[in-house]
Amino acid sequence: MTRAYNFSAGPATLPEPVLAQAAAEMLDWRGSGMGVMEMSHRGREFDEIFARTELRLRELLAVPAEFKILFMQGGAIAENAIVPMNLSRGGVTDHVVTGLWSIKTRQEALRYGEAHIVASNAADGAANHTTLPAPATWRLSANASYVHVCSNETINGVEMHELPDLRALGCDAPLVMDCSSHIGSRPIEWTRVGLAYAGAQKNIGPSGLTLVFVREDLLGHALPFCPSAFDYAVVAANGSMYNTPPTYSIYIAGLVFEWMAAQGGVAALEQRNIEKATLLYDAIDGSAFYTNRVAREARSRMNVPFFLPDDRLYAPFLAGAEEHRLLQLKGHKSVGGLRASIYNAMPLAGVQALVTYMREFAQRHG
Amino acid sequence: MTRAYNFSAGPATLPEPVLAQAAAEMLDWRGSGMGVMEMSHRGREFDEIFARTELRLRELLAVPAEFKILFMQGGAIAENAIVPMNLSRGGVTDHVVTGLWSIKTRQEALRYGEAHIVASNAADGAANHTTLPAPATWRLSANASYVHVCSNETINGVEMHELPDLRALGCDAPLVMDCSSHIGSRPIEWTRVGLAYAGAQKNIGPSGLTLVFVREDLLGHALPFCPSAFDYAVVAANGSMYNTPPTYSIYIAGLVFEWMAAQGGVAALEQRNIEKATLLYDAIDGSAFYTNRVAREARSRMNVPFFLPDDRLYAPFLAGAEEHRLLQLKGHKSVGGLRASIYNAMPLAGVQALVTYMREFAQRHG
Repeated sequence: MTRAYNFSAGPATLPEPVLAQAAAEMLDWRGSGMGVMEMSHRGREFDEIFARTELRLRELLAVPAEFKILFMQGGAIAENAIVPMNLSRGGVTDHVVTGLWSIKTRQEALRYGEAHIVASNAADGAANHTTLPAPATWRLSANASYVHVCSNETINGVEMHELPDLRALGCDAPLVMDCSSHIGSRPIEWTRVGLAYAGAQKNIGPSGLTLVFVREDLLGHALPFCPSAFDYAVVAANGSMYNTPPTYSIYIAGLVFEWMAAQGGVAALEQRNIEKATLLYDAIDGSAFYTNRVAREARSRMNVPFFLPDDRLYAPFLAGAEEHRLLQLKGHKSVGGLRASIYNAMPLAGVQALVTYMREFAQRHG
Repeated sequence: MTRAYNFSAGPATLPEPVLAQAAAEMLDWRGSGMGVMEMSHRGREFDEIFARTELRLRELLAVPAEFKILFMQGGAIAENAIVPMNLSRGGVTDHVVTGLWSIKTRQEALRYGEAHIVASNAADGAANHTTLPAPATWRLSANASYVHVCSNETINGVEMHELPDLRALGCDAPLVMDCSSHIGSRPIEWTRVGLAYAGAQKNIGPSGLTLVFVREDLLGHALPFCPSAFDYAVVAANGSMYNTPPTYSIYIAGLVFEWMAAQGGVAALEQRNIEKATLLYDAIDGSAFYTNRVAREARSRMNVPFFLPDDRLYAPFLAGAEEHRLLQLKGHKSVGGLRASIYNAMPLAGVQALVTYMREFAQRHG
């Protein structure tokens, strides 16, 4: 068995000890005679797994007591509809456009009411979506039920390094954020947040699980056509078991949370993420060969898109990377080029191996 | 490691070879350097897994070419909303009530239009939901967009052993069926079906995956507020990858399909299921101790609820069963008593062990 370094944007690499433990427990979870996949979601064994997973998550991210944590399905794309069905009351929602994910969110919100673009980084320079519009410039609506941001744009490699403080902007609407691709990579300023959601398949676990953190006072206003299974108040009242939850994905997420705690928690992981991102961006910026087009203050620590000086070099770069066991480095089709996703589970050694390969490749082709 | 016999109604026991293979491939799928959970859903490795899984499923259930197979999320409870959002056009839907699942389905459909109860087995005898209303007695609406049945009621243990032929009843509406808890246990008469859906967590794999089989002519009529991620036409046009699908659950389903093929396919599994169910029902009927309240012609081959002659005996029965490594036999709270779910993956030896224990228990306490 040879594990590669896997730079996929999601589903993405997971910590090896998590996978090893899952494999060891696959046929028999701790003497229960069943694998986790086979357990009733209402049995005492899964109860224990679920309670521990939620508790660990609450500890790791310091989630305040007034936030419910919901374990849902459908990923961020489903949440893009589920959020307005629960929070918009059919009225105005505000949207900060910073890349392809926030654009998708706003398009879906148009089904449920007026979805205003209050700021945008489209056509912001040599390339689209490479800066962050300053919160002071956002043209917030007086009557929006919430303000939506995507705090890390997986495709464009743009990250909000500080969450906007809407109250300081004179806005009472809650902030709603899609933090799918950097959840768990740094602490969250919960006092600035009303609702946060995240597909699990980047920093948390397998695809098919969505985490929703919602402040309790926002519950209970679902539109009449909102499916029961996606009504936050129903999901919360039933402890995420109104419908059968994705039990195995929750178990894997729980193992990842244990691993995160063993790494020293989110603050320690953030330091390592800074170190990894600095190494990669320095390698790009320090070369006359590679380029990253994102403004420095807006660069994502998780997703690093970069480009070669000649389009004919992409095929040999990717083939050589595979030979070096550096996988899934092709950029998203809408941006092109290359992209390295370096989530929590990517070790520093993986980024070092990538940087070493990049230097060799640049020397040969520069 | 000691595997128990696990009679959970779902999530439920899976074939041991499936779990063993999943464990062996957890850290490295066939030399790719990645586990399946870590693969991009758009990469060539997962493409191969997905294509093979869909093909195997189509072969096993002889799904005709005019049916799309969609891999979705949210289980049957989410589908109870997603089906009317896609098919009802806001009008009338017909519902055959045969137990708690079809009741839930009808309640959810009320959000989207008139949901008529056209037949019901409530209050049909000594206990509720123990018979099947004959199709000739259904009071079908002239203008329903579909007729819904739950072809196997997991909680009540009632199964339609033949699907209704709506055309023979003079009805042109498509049949929509929730077949979550017996899909794959017997062949499906597709000429009688417009749409079938099934949560995976009984006969197929882990919870968090929903299979939808939909006749192509029914696509394209979603209500305007239907989330994109749940619009069948969008999901079909994107090959179930409009949002990130539950990749690991699909992989496990694929391994289960390979196992089913190796067992001789669905017809062979049906024979084994008949054998297992006959053994268990005979043990119940042949005793003066155990009772099953469902009419013989309506009895489920998958879910067998049964009762003891004295309520004080349930605790010792369940404790003794656990000692014999016979797990999760407690009945659903709405029905009470005991329930043995004996899906495809439950070996004959498991049912034999249960029957042996039941005989011993009856001798001691009868």
